[in-house]
Amino acid sequence: MASAGRLSMRVLIAVSARHAHLSAATLRQLFGADYELHVRRWLSQIGQFSAEETVSLVGPRGQLDHVRLMGPPRAHDQVELSRTDEIALGIQAPLRVSGDLTGTPGVRVVGPAGSVTLPDGVITARRHIHMSPEDAQSLGVRDGQTVSVRIDSNGRDLTFDDVMVRIAPDFRLELHLDTDEANAAGVTDGDHAQLIVHR
Amino acid sequence: MASAGRLSMRVLIAVSARHAHLSAATLRQLFGADYELHVRRWLSQIGQFSAEETVSLVGPRGQLDHVRLMGPPRAHDQVELSRTDEIALGIQAPLRVSGDLTGTPGVRVVGPAGSVTLPDGVITARRHIHMSPEDAQSLGVRDGQTVSVRIDSNGRDLTFDDVMVRIAPDFRLELHLDTDEANAAGVTDGDHAQLIVHR
Repeated sequence: MASAGRLSMRVLIAVSARHAHLSAATLRQLFGADYELHVRRWLSQIGQFSAEETVSLVGPRGQLDHVRLMGPPRAHDQVELSRTDEIALGIQAPLRVSGDLTGTPGVRVVGPAGSVTLPDGVITARRHIHMSPEDAQSLGVRDGQTVSVRIDSNGRDLTFDDVMVRIAPDFRLELHLDTDEANAAGVTDGDHAQLIVHR
Repeated sequence: MASAGRLSMRVLIAVSARHAHLSAATLRQLFGADYELHVRRWLSQIGQFSAEETVSLVGPRGQLDHVRLMGPPRAHDQVELSRTDEIALGIQAPLRVSGDLTGTPGVRVVGPAGSVTLPDGVITARRHIHMSPEDAQSLGVRDGQTVSVRIDSNGRDLTFDDVMVRIAPDFRLELHLDTDEANAAGVTDGDHAQLIVHR
């Protein structure tokens, strides 16, 4: 694991396709009063799930259907898109960590019972790696710092820098990429990468 | 330019969105007899152009409209898609260099005067770098070898390996990425990268 001046560790890759975390108020407008999301699959983060429900997003240039919702509802609406999605919609969203929504663009969201024009909340997710405090300690990294990740695929080898470290007790070691990043690296959900930390 | 054991050179980035090179026979079926493509923009390769005309692609899972045609017509139909495009269509195309079409999947192509189901010809373009024989000599690289390219963007820095060198007298130094790769790196057409050759 250790060599001259650097540590490395094998890490699972999780690929996030476009999705939205919506507030209870927005969900009511899209699905009707007292509507509850149905769990499709539990995520690795405790209590988080991808829902059966999807919505459509409408931008100035185009529309994306079947955009997956995540649950449970959040305090603020947040829509995470790849740059490819944004180009299709005609939206330019900044690279942000989850929850950092100041100054982000909005989008029109269409559900089966109504539609809502969100004033903001659209981001391109900054690539990041989840880890437990124990993993962080053994690697000598802090929350918020950036690391590099090497991916050895068949014909699309690359090294991602600017991978932000996110530490929480319930996080398992997992690299989160969006679909553009996963496709550029020739990997899919469940593949592995090599986390590299220069000491 | 040179440092211990490695050479580097600044290189222009050209981003290729999904597009198709079609044969004269296929163009006739899609646009009618004696139809000629209209030049929209001349490309850096002499005599090559992107056309005013677009087609739709129909796969088992979805459809992509406004897919740009390139001219002049070629001997063989070739459709170049990003992995994101392939997922939208429901097609799995291999990573190939242009012209290497054996065993590739097909797709249905729809034009204003008819449609054609291509039996093969769909590829994901292998990332590559064009250069003149003079540039190749000064860098000490051969046609077909792979090099690395470093991209310094704002928050999506990365290094692409597996970049294939293509040498021809009319090639100017240019890195060709597809939209997934450009988006993962946070760059667009006309940005620059740093070509790195280890000696």
